[in-house]
Amino acid sequence: MRDIFLRACKGEKTTPVPVWFMRQAGRYLPQYQKIRGKADFLTMCKTPELAAEVTLQPVDILGVDAAILFSDILIPLEAMGAGLSFVEGKGPVINPPLRSLADLKGLRPIEPEEDVPFVLKTIKILRRELSGRVPLIGFAGAPFTMATYLIEGGTTKSFVNVKRMLFSSPSLFRSVLDIITKVTISYLSAQIKAGVQAVQLFDTWAGVLTRHDFRDAALIYSKRIFDALKKMGVPMIYFVYDGGHLLDLIRLSGADVIGLDWRTDILAALKSLGNDVVVQGNLDPCLMFLEDERLRERIARIIEQGLSAKAHIFNLGHGVLPEVPPERVRLAIDMVHELSS
Amino acid sequence: MRDIFLRACKGEKTTPVPVWFMRQAGRYLPQYQKIRGKADFLTMCKTPELAAEVTLQPVDILGVDAAILFSDILIPLEAMGAGLSFVEGKGPVINPPLRSLADLKGLRPIEPEEDVPFVLKTIKILRRELSGRVPLIGFAGAPFTMATYLIEGGTTKSFVNVKRMLFSSPSLFRSVLDIITKVTISYLSAQIKAGVQAVQLFDTWAGVLTRHDFRDAALIYSKRIFDALKKMGVPMIYFVYDGGHLLDLIRLSGADVIGLDWRTDILAALKSLGNDVVVQGNLDPCLMFLEDERLRERIARIIEQGLSAKAHIFNLGHGVLPEVPPERVRLAIDMVHELSS
Repeated sequence: MRDIFLRACKGEKTTPVPVWFMRQAGRYLPQYQKIRGKADFLTMCKTPELAAEVTLQPVDILGVDAAILFSDILIPLEAMGAGLSFVEGKGPVINPPLRSLADLKGLRPIEPEEDVPFVLKTIKILRRELSGRVPLIGFAGAPFTMATYLIEGGTTKSFVNVKRMLFSSPSLFRSVLDIITKVTISYLSAQIKAGVQAVQLFDTWAGVLTRHDFRDAALIYSKRIFDALKKMGVPMIYFVYDGGHLLDLIRLSGADVIGLDWRTDILAALKSLGNDVVVQGNLDPCLMFLEDERLRERIARIIEQGLSAKAHIFNLGHGVLPEVPPERVRLAIDMVHELSS
Repeated sequence: MRDIFLRACKGEKTTPVPVWFMRQAGRYLPQYQKIRGKADFLTMCKTPELAAEVTLQPVDILGVDAAILFSDILIPLEAMGAGLSFVEGKGPVINPPLRSLADLKGLRPIEPEEDVPFVLKTIKILRRELSGRVPLIGFAGAPFTMATYLIEGGTTKSFVNVKRMLFSSPSLFRSVLDIITKVTISYLSAQIKAGVQAVQLFDTWAGVLTRHDFRDAALIYSKRIFDALKKMGVPMIYFVYDGGHLLDLIRLSGADVIGLDWRTDILAALKSLGNDVVVQGNLDPCLMFLEDERLRERIARIIEQGLSAKAHIFNLGHGVLPEVPPERVRLAIDMVHELSS
């Protein structure tokens, strides 16, 4: 197996640097669109053959060094009893949103084998199909981010509902985060048992918190997950989007790898993280619109900065955008391999 | 006149610390809603008597130390020829968006006296009404932020259109920013001539840029504005939302006061800015949902951190939210005055 991703996760400087891209399985690929034309997004997530097929597409088409399970962070919320749908052009909707203790009582812990069997089946198919090629990454949403969707009822600009609960009903907020944390531990444990070889915890929204509130409302729950999973022995990645102001705290999470968005240079990030850390990132996905030579310069700079870390996994600072031509994505992957060889 | 705001802008540590809140004139106030019930948002902006009335409301109701002109950053774009509307629940829409050189040719520079006379008339009414009370702040959107609305056609999550133009059509992008910069200089000059006693440049979206791209796509244009206005002698504030990773660059803008959102502690910000700087900020607007004693602690901490700067103007890290009860806003203002006296 091409194992540079796993070796880098464990702190080894590899040649070349491993590369995978968030949302590498996605709408920018015509091969994905073809399947998406036949099934809606949630059906794709819940049909192991389809989910496995789109997971494999970027491995075949792009030559990435890791596959990441095709799924959605909100899948376990639905299994807990939340009303989940995806509205075209609007994104995920949770209806009704969680606003009270009574709403919380409508949520239950999950048994992954019974409640999300399709995820575990997808993983098993993928391990078989991937054998001898690249490792498989599993993932979940971090508790604060999951709570944000649950409490806001979808995406938000102001985060007023989730923060209002945090600030004016702290005990209810803690109960919500507690149950999500418990579910996430059981969900990721099941993914690992089913065969994923690394896990990433996505904290898409915790970057909207002050340092003080990140500690209380996000970090302690994410840390609880990493602490619980550590004994299972797979590398764990923590990605807090827009978390540049939180990096020294993120370092305390217990994760093996710290994901960085594009805002914070790797060198600036290492000032907060220390150099003895494995980092993952951090090309702005929009930079793939640059002409070749400029793109090469930007990728080279990131690879050079990554040398100052203990090890570096190349990635984007966020997901691949649907608007980017697939040949640009392939070119970027090739450049990473070439420039770090 | 209660001049602590202007004195702090000029670098004087005042007792108490001056305080005003972004969007202090807004939907959270029933007195605002009453007027808004009779006129749509754009009509309010364009009717000097109404705009002046809502500008004055927080001065009367909250006891803030500065008034800020009621208007919208997109007003000059409309005067340039862009098709602007405000869609309930969706925010501003520019239709058609600017995507090509042909679209750019549809935009023209403005003569503020002819194209936005209502803004200048509002300022004149306000200076008369405010005389002997508090200073009046004028404002504009910074060029990158204005270009984002123009090119995206409204708000966006991915910024793919504006960044695609920046990266794949840099010469068109520069032409767009050049005309916006020119218009902004003439617009703010006219505001100052009409009587505003300080100006704030809002760079709501420049925080989505890497440091490299912020320099090329935002900072040079904002700096051009501050350089051009410096001779007019009024304090100039630069607020880059979510700009924690850019602070040392923001320091080079030539602004007299640096606005901070809530993500970056003032002490952390001063490490990048140096201590010889006037800062404005930075309470998370959602913290007004805290119970009194906890809110007091958070405000006290910000005031204490502000003592390490050359001078400090208290503000929120973003605008007042419509969901916050006005009595909480009033309480926060009172606490700032009490805790810094």
